[in-house]
Amino acid sequence: MTLPRVPFDDRGLAYGDGVFETVLLRKGEPVLWPYHLARLKRGCQRLGIPIPSQEALAATWGGGASATLEVLKLIVTRGSGGRGYALPETPAPRLLSRRTPFAPETARWQEGVTVRQCRLRLGHQPVLAGIKHLNRLENVLARQEWQTPNIAEGLLADAHGQLIEATSMNVFWQQQGCVFTPRLDKCGVAGTLRAALISQGVVREADVSLEATPSVERLWVANSVQGVWPVTALLSEDGVCLKRWPQNASDRFQTVAHQLLGYVSQ
Amino acid sequence: MTLPRVPFDDRGLAYGDGVFETVLLRKGEPVLWPYHLARLKRGCQRLGIPIPSQEALAATWGGGASATLEVLKLIVTRGSGGRGYALPETPAPRLLSRRTPFAPETARWQEGVTVRQCRLRLGHQPVLAGIKHLNRLENVLARQEWQTPNIAEGLLADAHGQLIEATSMNVFWQQQGCVFTPRLDKCGVAGTLRAALISQGVVREADVSLEATPSVERLWVANSVQGVWPVTALLSEDGVCLKRWPQNASDRFQTVAHQLLGYVSQ
Repeated sequence: MTLPRVPFDDRGLAYGDGVFETVLLRKGEPVLWPYHLARLKRGCQRLGIPIPSQEALAATWGGGASATLEVLKLIVTRGSGGRGYALPETPAPRLLSRRTPFAPETARWQEGVTVRQCRLRLGHQPVLAGIKHLNRLENVLARQEWQTPNIAEGLLADAHGQLIEATSMNVFWQQQGCVFTPRLDKCGVAGTLRAALISQGVVREADVSLEATPSVERLWVANSVQGVWPVTALLSEDGVCLKRWPQNASDRFQTVAHQLLGYVSQ
Repeated sequence: MTLPRVPFDDRGLAYGDGVFETVLLRKGEPVLWPYHLARLKRGCQRLGIPIPSQEALAATWGGGASATLEVLKLIVTRGSGGRGYALPETPAPRLLSRRTPFAPETARWQEGVTVRQCRLRLGHQPVLAGIKHLNRLENVLARQEWQTPNIAEGLLADAHGQLIEATSMNVFWQQQGCVFTPRLDKCGVAGTLRAALISQGVVREADVSLEATPSVERLWVANSVQGVWPVTALLSEDGVCLKRWPQNASDRFQTVAHQLLGYVSQ
């Protein structure tokens, strides 16, 4: 299967002028699609890019599944044209997609993962916060901070030291029995699993500093493809272990989230 | 001539994971090339992308000029590969280029231009400040703030209200006879004409708030392709005229800059 290509003057390449979605497909059907569509629309509206039609979007997962689980990556760019940063007079966005067979890392569901605190601080840009746009250099740079494969994710704070997200997952913590996730109105990507959990009343938005993360009762990183990874060890920027949490055989938060993703039956 | 293309999984498209340069070619030779090369190297080093060889770069402007003046756009992406944000084990960057015949807007050199203050505030990200990376959504969004063709540029401040740059040019102002340009250690793109002017001792870095711009003695926007546009009218976000400056028949700052670009003889 040949990959779709974009020309040199596509604004997605030139400026990161577009948005993307990474969608779990189960037997060829998108999981949490209403949340993906809502974020895609919000992103396109924020950037002033026409939203692809529902038919064009549905065609990206039509045509039969090659595996029970796949990942569908969608990219919407503003297309070519315009003079420099100025927009093209007639917008002609491009919708590109790719499907890849997928298997979640189930060992991480059960055994938990080690995460580290990242050195990089996310800049504040309220206009771009929450949407899944193509300007992802902060995430790329943060992910360069470690190479050891036993570290599963890195926790990112903003310039004020507030916990925001992990490099490619959202973060959740438990305090006094309740589960919280950082507000994402200044930076960060608002994940679709996060949105579904908030909408179900399972999770509420709150603030916690990166510095205070070792003192939370429990900590998870999660997204709509990988599911929920309980954090069992937290390392500092310098690799020092700041905290260990015990494994939890009956993790209610994980169970609820995995029901939403179809990883456990309702 | 067909445009170069990149595949779906190119990280320049996926994450804006790369840098670019826009170079004036005069009779097929790059103008201010040492400054472009220095910025390209700095950008690649900051992102951890191998720097293209001097031979590969020189090949982009080899092969004869199609016009006296051309613009050469270079894009260097990290290439394909890696798992999500994690880097590919074997980096294989892509160097892409395009040459376009060019004519500067000489009327703007002589008559000056109208610029406006932009509403969007640039976020602080010291790690990315100064380099010409492919994450340019802030510039795209700022450029959407006006459509009227008589407005030539928009002035951008950071979240603290400090003047940083214009959407695709650097900004210079005169105070007590000296010419200044904003520091770019927290955000903004450090232009090559700006770098050459600083290195010649013509311009110094300083701070000025966007709010205070109407009170400067003179104001210019400039880059290494378009040259120097004196600002003769400054509008607020709402289109209200805040200040007019008279035309200046003998603009020494412009003359020095245009000597560097070869637009006037030394």
